[in-house]
Amino acid sequence: EVAVSGAARMGLVYDGNDTEFSSRIRVTFSMSGETDSGLSFGASIRADQAGTGNAGADGAGGAFGGDDMDAGTVYISGAFGKLTFGDNDSAANVLVGNVSGVGFTGLGDFNELGYLGQVDTSALYEYSTGALSFALSSSQLNTDDAVSVAVKYSTDAFSVALGYEDDAADSQISLGGSATFGAATVKAVVADVDSAADTAFALSVDYAMDATTVTAFYADHGAVDGFGLGASYDLGGGAALVGGVVDNGVDTVADLGVTMKF
Amino acid sequence: EVAVSGAARMGLVYDGNDTEFSSRIRVTFSMSGETDSGLSFGASIRADQAGTGNAGADGAGGAFGGDDMDAGTVYISGAFGKLTFGDNDSAANVLVGNVSGVGFTGLGDFNELGYLGQVDTSALYEYSTGALSFALSSSQLNTDDAVSVAVKYSTDAFSVALGYEDDAADSQISLGGSATFGAATVKAVVADVDSAADTAFALSVDYAMDATTVTAFYADHGAVDGFGLGASYDLGGGAALVGGVVDNGVDTVADLGVTMKF
Amino acid sequence: EVAVSGAARMGLVYDGNDTEFSSRIRVTFSMSGETDSGLSFGASIRADQAGTGNAGADGAGGAFGGDDMDAGTVYISGAFGKLTFGDNDSAANVLVGNVSGVGFTGLGDFNELGYLGQVDTSALYEYSTGALSFALSSSQLNTDDAVSVAVKYSTDAFSVALGYEDDAADSQISLGGSATFGAATVKAVVADVDSAADTAFALSVDYAMDATTVTAFYADHGAVDGFGLGASYDLGGGAALVGGVVDNGVDTVADLGVTMKF
Repeated sequence: EVAVSGAARMGLVYDGNDTEFSSRIRVTFSMSGETDSGLSFGASIRADQAGTGNAGADGAGGAFGGDDMDAGTVYISGAFGKLTFGDNDSAANVLVGNVSGVGFTGLGDFNELGYLGQVDTSALYEYSTGALSFALSSSQLNTDDAVSVAVKYSTDAFSVALGYEDDAADSQISLGGSATFGAATVKAVVADVDSAADTAFALSVDYAMDATTVTAFYADHGAVDGFGLGASYDLGGGAALVGGVVDNGVDTVADLGVTMKF
Repeated sequence: EVAVSGAARMGLVYDGNDTEFSSRIRVTFSMSGETDSGLSFGASIRADQAGTGNAGADGAGGAFGGDDMDAGTVYISGAFGKLTFGDNDSAANVLVGNVSGVGFTGLGDFNELGYLGQVDTSALYEYSTGALSFALSSSQLNTDDAVSVAVKYSTDAFSVALGYEDDAADSQISLGGSATFGAATVKAVVADVDSAADTAFALSVDYAMDATTVTAFYADHGAVDGFGLGASYDLGGGAALVGGVVDNGVDTVADLGVTMKF
Repeated sequence: EVAVSGAARMGLVYDGNDTEFSSRIRVTFSMSGETDSGLSFGASIRADQAGTGNAGADGAGGAFGGDDMDAGTVYISGAFGKLTFGDNDSAANVLVGNVSGVGFTGLGDFNELGYLGQVDTSALYEYSTGALSFALSSSQLNTDDAVSVAVKYSTDAFSVALGYEDDAADSQISLGGSATFGAATVKAVVADVDSAADTAFALSVDYAMDATTVTAFYADHGAVDGFGLGASYDLGGGAALVGGVVDNGVDTVADLGVTMKF
């Protein structure tokens, strides 16, 4: 089965100097199936990335096709866990993640501290048992030797996650946590990159009141720090009114718009 | 909801020197939804333009994504009218439009006098009440200062429309009208571009007989004038046999083919 | 109607020197309709090729659009046969085809001897009556003068096919046959290219045992020869475990992975 879904957004963005119109559309294809023995398998790709998902970024598809697939993912999963090939995030990125951001465009994603990442076609293995999740990832073989491992403990009330990434040039330890106190959810991420002098740090609070969620974050990237404040109002039917302001240490940027899911 | 539709065509084209095979396929995604308060929202894009609809033409998506989206549109509409961001035609183009063309490929669209247009991500606002329609559009802010305004009065028997466009370099007034006399529909468009010495003029007649529609047009672009003659035969099920001949003032070109809607 | 289908694969490829991850996703749109008089028409294209299917490879769409459409096809069919415009294989390629290959990636398709091919937008005409099939194809007009004609006689037990291709530079005669003996299917193709000193030759055997099919092929391309050995195990639900080894005369390459149809 192939499910077609979509997302769109429209609004105004102030980039620190000018205000501009901004809009975007995305179409996503999600494929899923099940073998006779009960294994699940599937694949997912965006319409605008169908080319690199088919042939790899170099267009020639590498030696025999698909060895540099840098968009979309293909997986097989069962009692053994889930194995995904393609355009994966690193294990640390998948389980530690990021604190909440603001704005209908993300406003430059200043809330994200960043991960070392890996070269695609990469492989990601995930396994969950009860509250415990485990992930292991690898760059394409014979490239930058990037590997990552991460664990997460997650309950309804809180989660903690620890991730490690290592490649030929650098390494990073990431620690994340989240906790829900009534209407408030607090998230924190600490990232220690071996090559950087300072430890980076980010904190966010999401406060939900009926259809409205207010979000604030502070991010210290080491060389630069800043913060963001935003709100989202659920319009129903897949639409939301979303706006935010971010001081990224250089400019104060802002946006206001409508996000849509189809 | 995401609806997938398609259009295709195949046939022969004579370009004034040679006859060639010609074919084309288009896939379109149309998304629509409704908020709890009854506002409609949606988006639409072609599969071949999914890349520029997602990231903007420069691939980087501009400052925070989507500020140069030159394909696809995103809208929100309600009692206040309809507001569309993205790859819009100017207000004058939307309401005044063009006289009918001929051929399954359009044969160079010589029936169209042209509009000044605007830079995307543009904004288009439309409002209708009874027989009266109003449209207002703007280029991306801080670009070419293009704005356009247009009005149209439309009944089952006839319509008249007036549009004005202005940008940093030029301005254009467009006047259009159509009227139906039994089986015949007559359309006329006059375009007066400030920078052009002559006023451009186009006229078309569509004559419908059962499944067949015969179309003739004359277009005087000022520097060059020409005419076209064509016919379309509805094959049913979304297919039509369509052919035409156009004298564009330089060459006589022609085509014959089948158009398909899915 | 537009049907959306998909295919994906993931696994490991050994390219003779290194082992790498490999994965791929494809999305396909298949459109079909029927006229009031009972003619069938339709079109088909992959998502990653929607751009060249819409506008032609040069982006401008040629003189009046679609005259160099090198992806996707558009057809109309009825009692007179089937006429397809777009990105066609030559008539010889369509009816004579290739012997079976191995591996989830095809491992370089060394089993295929190759066809002269043609320039798109090409035209392909096919007609079948009982066990007999006939095909005729032409390059885009005014290009390389490539034409091809082929016939095939096919029953449940065996088939034979003969194809001829001719273009401005070369010509090729291709002869193919297949026969089924119980669980075994044997295929053979002989290709005689006018410009090549030697006649190329390929032979394959597919042996089916329940959910497993074992395939072996030998291919003599003239200047180089090699062979392949592989197997496919049907996992059900559209998935299969597929692997192969090919000696292509230069390297020994191998792969093992899962193929998926959605």
